[in-house]
Amino acid sequence: MKIIRKIEEQQKYSLDMKCRNKKISLIPTMGFLHEGHLSLIDTAKELSEKIVVSIFVNPTQFGKGEDFDKYPRDEKRDLSLLEKKEVDIAFIPTIEEMYPEEFQTSCQVRELTKKHCGKSRPGHFKGVTTVVLKLFNIIQPDIAVFGEKDYQQYIIIERMTEDLNLPINIIASPIVREKDGLAMSSRNKYLNHEQRKEATVLYESLIYASNLIKKGKYGAGFLRKEMTNLIKSKNNTRIDYIDFANTETLKDVQKIEEPTRILMAVWVGNTRLIDNMEVKP
Amino acid sequence: MKIIRKIEEQQKYSLDMKCRNKKISLIPTMGFLHEGHLSLIDTAKELSEKIVVSIFVNPTQFGKGEDFDKYPRDEKRDLSLLEKKEVDIAFIPTIEEMYPEEFQTSCQVRELTKKHCGKSRPGHFKGVTTVVLKLFNIIQPDIAVFGEKDYQQYIIIERMTEDLNLPINIIASPIVREKDGLAMSSRNKYLNHEQRKEATVLYESLIYASNLIKKGKYGAGFLRKEMTNLIKSKNNTRIDYIDFANTETLKDVQKIEEPTRILMAVWVGNTRLIDNMEVKP
Repeated sequence: MKIIRKIEEQQKYSLDMKCRNKKISLIPTMGFLHEGHLSLIDTAKELSEKIVVSIFVNPTQFGKGEDFDKYPRDEKRDLSLLEKKEVDIAFIPTIEEMYPEEFQTSCQVRELTKKHCGKSRPGHFKGVTTVVLKLFNIIQPDIAVFGEKDYQQYIIIERMTEDLNLPINIIASPIVREKDGLAMSSRNKYLNHEQRKEATVLYESLIYASNLIKKGKYGAGFLRKEMTNLIKSKNNTRIDYIDFANTETLKDVQKIEEPTRILMAVWVGNTRLIDNMEVKP
Repeated sequence: MKIIRKIEEQQKYSLDMKCRNKKISLIPTMGFLHEGHLSLIDTAKELSEKIVVSIFVNPTQFGKGEDFDKYPRDEKRDLSLLEKKEVDIAFIPTIEEMYPEEFQTSCQVRELTKKHCGKSRPGHFKGVTTVVLKLFNIIQPDIAVFGEKDYQQYIIIERMTEDLNLPINIIASPIVREKDGLAMSSRNKYLNHEQRKEATVLYESLIYASNLIKKGKYGAGFLRKEMTNLIKSKNNTRIDYIDFANTETLKDVQKIEEPTRILMAVWVGNTRLIDNMEVKP
């Protein structure tokens, strides 16, 4: 595995691979890798010959007062995990390399970024789309793999890619969960023992809703109320949102009459966790 | 010459040329071609093997009440001019092809778009950068050639290209003028006989200023006043702006002590004309 820290070197590598007709997959990450990230690599390996994993804790997608400074980082551990996975390139640019002083360009997706996480985290998705667009131009992948845990992000990136005519195939890879159902996330590290136990309530509430749907309870309002009650039964939880949206368009769903994503964000102590699940009538 | 109207077909062509190691130049235009455009083709031909000229009157860069509807169009004439110039591809997408119903992504350059034409035409440059980014992704040129008449546009595109890490070389090509000095523009067609005669005052005022500078008059305020007086001596003129800016950064210049662009926009009747010139102490 090669570690590349300079944009120009990465572009040279990618151009060389293109000329040799090798398909490249990109897996963009913020590091502190877990099984979820590693499963994205497995997905990518089935689709392409060369795997580039980027590690970049992107400052522009964190709001004021958010956890940019304390976001967990462990490059040494990350590199050893990527090495074991036989990744080809770890692309690890510095902030100065990505955002030189005169930097002033951004990319924005309009409607899709207004709801769900976009509502709670203004500017977040603008930071995400801008950095992902940069990474796409630097690595020039044929395929980019994103985790479904950040489902809204995946839909937004897909929209951006199509709108900007980028010749890149965007792939979503399923959520990887701990044994007790908690969706894997670098932020789980923030949870203390009690919070960690309570954090499973996100997944439990999704399962609970999907069981209610199986019993014919299709009203989004009813389902939200039932999920809310379950989540509120825990000491340290505070609901940010529970939304029901069309799986492809993210348009509001009032009744589960079409493939629907239940999207949710819940604070457990000072940690904001997200999860989601597809449900069908 | 081949005419391509579909994005997918253009991308296939470009990928094929890349694989054959042929360098592609893009000249983005809004059609109604004149000698200015044709000179961009000459510039491009010296730098690359394949020439793609796009013709697309981009609705998103026209403001409300601007001249999108009446902007001159003559595809047949354009095609015959391009044919004569031995251009390889005329890329002529429809509005629906470029902006399908669900389209919602934009690209924006922050500071550079706030002044000069950006101040008079809010949203204009956002439309420009978004469509140019799309054209870059569709045509995937090695080189893109822009006319210096739209000098602020050229600087903004250059900034965007660097900020987004696009592997494209942005080239500026000098202004082409009519015999009497009027910068060539598709919008010159709007001028009636009297206005056409008065329109030379933009160039005359630039020459006048550059002569004053040669005589040691370096104050931007003084020069603006002198240019204003000359322009106001014509019946049908109304000044939008006369600005003095660093040639590379477009930062305000108070005194001509560095390479400076004089940038100007002047209404002649109902037609807004722009021009610019580099001056040095």
